[in-house]
Amino acid sequence: MDAHRTLEFWFDFGSNYSYLAMLRVEALAAQRDVRVVLKPFLLGPIFKSFGWESSPFVLQAKKGAYTWRDMERQCAKYGLPWNKPSVFPRRALLPMRVAIAAEGQPWLGQFCRRIMHANFVDDREIDDAATVTEVLAALQLAPDAWITLAQEDATKAALRAQSTKAAARGIFGAPTFFVGDEMFWGNDRLEDALEYARGRRRFAPIAPAPD
Amino acid sequence: MDAHRTLEFWFDFGSNYSYLAMLRVEALAAQRDVRVVLKPFLLGPIFKSFGWESSPFVLQAKKGAYTWRDMERQCAKYGLPWNKPSVFPRRALLPMRVAIAAEGQPWLGQFCRRIMHANFVDDREIDDAATVTEVLAALQLAPDAWITLAQEDATKAALRAQSTKAAARGIFGAPTFFVGDEMFWGNDRLEDALEYARGRRRFAPIAPAPD
Repeated sequence: MDAHRTLEFWFDFGSNYSYLAMLRVEALAAQRDVRVVLKPFLLGPIFKSFGWESSPFVLQAKKGAYTWRDMERQCAKYGLPWNKPSVFPRRALLPMRVAIAAEGQPWLGQFCRRIMHANFVDDREIDDAATVTEVLAALQLAPDAWITLAQEDATKAALRAQSTKAAARGIFGAPTFFVGDEMFWGNDRLEDALEYARGRRRFAPIAPAPD
Repeated sequence: MDAHRTLEFWFDFGSNYSYLAMLRVEALAAQRDVRVVLKPFLLGPIFKSFGWESSPFVLQAKKGAYTWRDMERQCAKYGLPWNKPSVFPRRALLPMRVAIAAEGQPWLGQFCRRIMHANFVDDREIDDAATVTEVLAALQLAPDAWITLAQEDATKAALRAQSTKAAARGIFGAPTFFVGDEMFWGNDRLEDALEYARGRRRFAPIAPAPD
């Protein structure tokens, strides 16, 4: 598989549109022979750098109201389960740290999908050790070892560094996909990003002026 | 054609994602036997009501930079011509007033596509009488009569009223589509809105928990 056929998927477990992409990405990528690299990062510091104290879906009432209806419809379209979280956006430091500590592990995709499910279907606090422990245990992993690793200074620093890198690469929201340096923002661009990754989307004929 | 099979398309000639939808909507709707009702409204007062002095693509530098690259890619995908306007967002009061005065005219779609083309392909000032005159003349219409009508107090009031109604209906950006009271935001939701209009998108099976 050549290096170009790689999709970086930058996400935050608190982001609802990241939930849609997380539940869809691996199957769609596999169909296209594209490799997925999961890149957890903290969206909060990016929003803070814009002067926002929370998600735009909280700060902008009309956009927020629309977003929850949009999520119902999008989940129905994709056949995904959905329950509006009672807390939004949820803190997710602990599972984010586990995810960055587990970079390259074959079970990372499963772990991420289950954490997303806990937030956006089961309406659970995903920053609690109990939730993360349960998800790790269900995957036949050693929860205590992974949670200990997640809380080491080096892991915390790695997540901070990843978030700084996200900002430096121009990320302003989540999910964001990269294919090389080409950036795609939002679950709505997932298919475009994958087509780009496999070299099927470069140029299209330009139409004449409208009638 | 039953009343449900109608898509309201709310747009501003200054909005780049409205350009994509304007150039696509009538052909896609015709394929699905859905009627399109064009609803020009002013996006500026809505942004001002949020405390924004311009488009988020101007106010948020990173999102703005991304948007122009996204427009290049989206236009390539759809086979639409594109040149980044040298002025953004462009004032469009005069053509908006013509559009609202021309509600129900059979040439309104053509007029709107050509004004969009002037802005997003030819990089012309669309609020100038010269541009609007040229577009109307090319459609074999009487430019002076339509421009006079556009500048009457009743037309100005109709555009203001339409913009107030947009805000009251929860619109926070453009393009926005309505099918009855169901609202869809953004060119990316055009196909969903059309499928909804023809009754093909109501529910989908809910998937089991992730693996």
